[in-house]
Amino acid sequence: MKNNAPGALLGPLTVDPGERMPLYRQVYRRIRELVLDGSLSRGSRLPSTRTLAADLGLSRNTVLAAVEQLTFEGYLISRVGDGTYVAAVLPEDLEKPRWPRTGDAGGEPQPSIRQLSRAGERLRSNPVGRDPIAPGAFAVGIPALDRFPWPIWNRSWSRFGRDPERRLLSYGEAAGYRPLRREIAAYLNAARGVRCDPEQVIVVSSSQQAIDLVARALIDPGDPVWIEEPGYLGARGALTAAGAELTPVPVDDDGLVVAAGAAARPGARLVYVTPSHQYPLGSVLSLERRLELLDWASEHDAWILEDDYDSELRFVGQPLAALQGLDRAGGGGDRGRVIYAGTFTKVMYPSLRLAYLVPPDDLVEPLLKIRCFVDRHSPTLPQAALADFMAGGHFSAHIRRMRSLYRERQECLLEALHRHLAGRLLSRPDPAGMHLVVELPDTDDDIALRDQCAARGVQLSSLSRYYLGSKKKSGLLLGYASPDRRQIEEGVERLAAVLGQGWGEGLKPPQRAETRS
Amino acid sequence: MKNNAPGALLGPLTVDPGERMPLYRQVYRRIRELVLDGSLSRGSRLPSTRTLAADLGLSRNTVLAAVEQLTFEGYLISRVGDGTYVAAVLPEDLEKPRWPRTGDAGGEPQPSIRQLSRAGERLRSNPVGRDPIAPGAFAVGIPALDRFPWPIWNRSWSRFGRDPERRLLSYGEAAGYRPLRREIAAYLNAARGVRCDPEQVIVVSSSQQAIDLVARALIDPGDPVWIEEPGYLGARGALTAAGAELTPVPVDDDGLVVAAGAAARPGARLVYVTPSHQYPLGSVLSLERRLELLDWASEHDAWILEDDYDSELRFVGQPLAALQGLDRAGGGGDRGRVIYAGTFTKVMYPSLRLAYLVPPDDLVEPLLKIRCFVDRHSPTLPQAALADFMAGGHFSAHIRRMRSLYRERQECLLEALHRHLAGRLLSRPDPAGMHLVVELPDTDDDIALRDQCAARGVQLSSLSRYYLGSKKKSGLLLGYASPDRRQIEEGVERLAAVLGQGWGEGLKPPQRAETRS
Repeated sequence: MKNNAPGALLGPLTVDPGERMPLYRQVYRRIRELVLDGSLSRGSRLPSTRTLAADLGLSRNTVLAAVEQLTFEGYLISRVGDGTYVAAVLPEDLEKPRWPRTGDAGGEPQPSIRQLSRAGERLRSNPVGRDPIAPGAFAVGIPALDRFPWPIWNRSWSRFGRDPERRLLSYGEAAGYRPLRREIAAYLNAARGVRCDPEQVIVVSSSQQAIDLVARALIDPGDPVWIEEPGYLGARGALTAAGAELTPVPVDDDGLVVAAGAAARPGARLVYVTPSHQYPLGSVLSLERRLELLDWASEHDAWILEDDYDSELRFVGQPLAALQGLDRAGGGGDRGRVIYAGTFTKVMYPSLRLAYLVPPDDLVEPLLKIRCFVDRHSPTLPQAALADFMAGGHFSAHIRRMRSLYRERQECLLEALHRHLAGRLLSRPDPAGMHLVVELPDTDDDIALRDQCAARGVQLSSLSRYYLGSKKKSGLLLGYASPDRRQIEEGVERLAAVLGQGWGEGLKPPQRAETRS
Repeated sequence: MKNNAPGALLGPLTVDPGERMPLYRQVYRRIRELVLDGSLSRGSRLPSTRTLAADLGLSRNTVLAAVEQLTFEGYLISRVGDGTYVAAVLPEDLEKPRWPRTGDAGGEPQPSIRQLSRAGERLRSNPVGRDPIAPGAFAVGIPALDRFPWPIWNRSWSRFGRDPERRLLSYGEAAGYRPLRREIAAYLNAARGVRCDPEQVIVVSSSQQAIDLVARALIDPGDPVWIEEPGYLGARGALTAAGAELTPVPVDDDGLVVAAGAAARPGARLVYVTPSHQYPLGSVLSLERRLELLDWASEHDAWILEDDYDSELRFVGQPLAALQGLDRAGGGGDRGRVIYAGTFTKVMYPSLRLAYLVPPDDLVEPLLKIRCFVDRHSPTLPQAALADFMAGGHFSAHIRRMRSLYRERQECLLEALHRHLAGRLLSRPDPAGMHLVVELPDTDDDIALRDQCAARGVQLSSLSRYYLGSKKKSGLLLGYASPDRRQIEEGVERLAAVLGQGWGEGLKPPQRAETRS
């Protein structure tokens, strides 16, 4: 704009200071119109901004802003030391589709999704839980949202929305908010027998993220990994994404059959287990098996990922101590093989998205570094609220209340099943958890049954989906934590109605050891 | 426990109903003591729980709970149809380290970290931003936390902590909370020229997560990818993790030099760009280059990941329309090549962890599926609060206030730099953003300078870290959004003091086109 030589004829360019649009925007719009209707022809030179400003009775800055915007958008071209010109190609010239529409007549039908990465394809081919899940009969994995202590939680939650300390608002530590990590470490030491200090605790969004981070840190494509059969779909997905070659290892009443895994795939790099309460069948990994697993892992230099997803919710006796606590090398600077994961979603509420990962010391730093490139850290204010809630003793109190509530709700479910389906469907109590498993004859199609129930407003999960191998058991998972007494009763009535229509011949309960009943 | 034959001699086993410990826990503890001190010898048989209960004057359930716990923990062994025995191997037998300590005398010194996956190693080897970042002079990428409208935000934040609707608490949609997606789509259409409907919007935790998800969905190990040189470290990390072979493509005053990329690596699968405000140098991708890039991508069947990280914060003129809007195939069922990403962290506050990803239609479903196995979804209540805040017009109002505030703070920084470092350090305004770049002579060690400043309480970033190739420019990034006037003044004084000690010879400003000044 240094050259003051007269530019192209501008024609009428007036602005109305009374209009609500900012002045520079009015100038922008008028020049753009002149360009588009050809009054200012392509390639022609504009007067200097000084001249334009004088003509319009506006400040030069206003005109500069308009010209700059037009230049950015490609209507004008600025040549340093020369002046400003109308562009030869205008943005409007480009207003036509650049690629054919999917399914355009005449062309080859295009594949509906373009090529993904191999990891992307592996993920797409995995079964995924339906989302979102509504609470009620018999949603699996949803806690009693009707009994959550909202007034107390809201005190913690709102406390940090009122002009919080600045350090809570900037980027936080990848490992999570320090006071929450201290609360988690104290809780895990006292209640779960996990040996850890707060420096080992990594706050994550979910067990799912914990598994994904571990898989990314440790699994190369082709690495053999054991998973429980049947087992958690989320683990299967995340491990598959990392390229793991999964070996399904059967579970029985003592949990994972370690010997079967060792026979099928002795050189596995990692094993994913739910020792406290096998997901979905509910068995507990026996002490003998725990030792067998630790010994096998030691011998084969393998990792154990312990997912302790609902361990708090044991109604009979104390919750079992975590496998991590038996891994004597797990704390105090020694090396361990057990990577421990747990979650707040089953005790608090799922949409909170807070969980934790406790790796052996030497894995902490690599996992944090990976976390930085994955999503950096979990939101801080919810972490601060949870730390406040835990420090006030409300978390433990809530767990205690949920234990007796879930025992009641399970009894209510068992009683209703007995009343409506006795003789056709035997069911037994589980001393822990949030769902019951009812096995069906393997000839029964539990997915069709699930869909029939869904059509009557009863959500449940089909057991066969949790199997990776071709030998699947047919069955139902009935979540009893979120529905109230009335919903449970109604849900069982509807289930009975569906089962009365040709289903329900020769149903049998899951095999359970006497000590579990 | 069906056999009532007399068991081993139990010795004194009394419980005190006045003690605060639950009765079953007292029974548990006493039996455990008897086992550990040998009073109940290994392998010996326990009396039936009925007998024990009668002896102790307690309910059989209390004794059962204690026995069950001891069985779970491995002190007792239960044989179905027979009875309960003291275990031959006790948990305490295992209380010895199973692996040598790191650095134990006598052994080979162990590597401090055990073998990670290749992806894990790639991530570990990447430079990472320091965490956490304190607001103040001259933190890069931190907004004005002192001017955030806390009272208004707290209304939205707290509204959802008071007994929220149940559907906000269960698992939500992987794509995010629907009302927030509608707000984002409306905002992006109106303010950013992004063509999208709410079904295309995926709520993520951060630009970082957006890049990571895209990399996982589209990049196979060995795939060539262009990144800007210099460029965002987080993108480098996430793309590297997926195994991308990165080609650093230079940027000039018109942004990414597309021709240089096409010459160096014509067959790239993806290009990562920041068209609105190049990170970290601040140039804008010109219309000509935008078209060149779209054409190149079309010709080579490549993807463009547009990171629009701080586009809202343009002080002069309107923010530039997004590249995505030029990608005519981007909306309405057509296929596009541009995957658009933006974030709330720069306008709201970093620890909120909410951002968005807008892929072409056919990528939505695969990305959501991947999201399910990564961390399922972002926390719902903060999303609901943000949707409420946006619907009330507070988000747009806050952006407008921040634009003028940041212009003021940038002017304040420029003025202070001029006053304290005129002649030694030239600096020019940037019409957008949250930081200024000051180039140093390439012989200057900007990392040492950064560290010297840090030692005096002034945070800044060194430009050379943002280069992937060996040809790096030396310089400083000075964030001016979070410090107030006093902190800016003080920060520049300290920077001048450091520069006065042997630094500061022949410093020059970054090259900028006339139109940018």
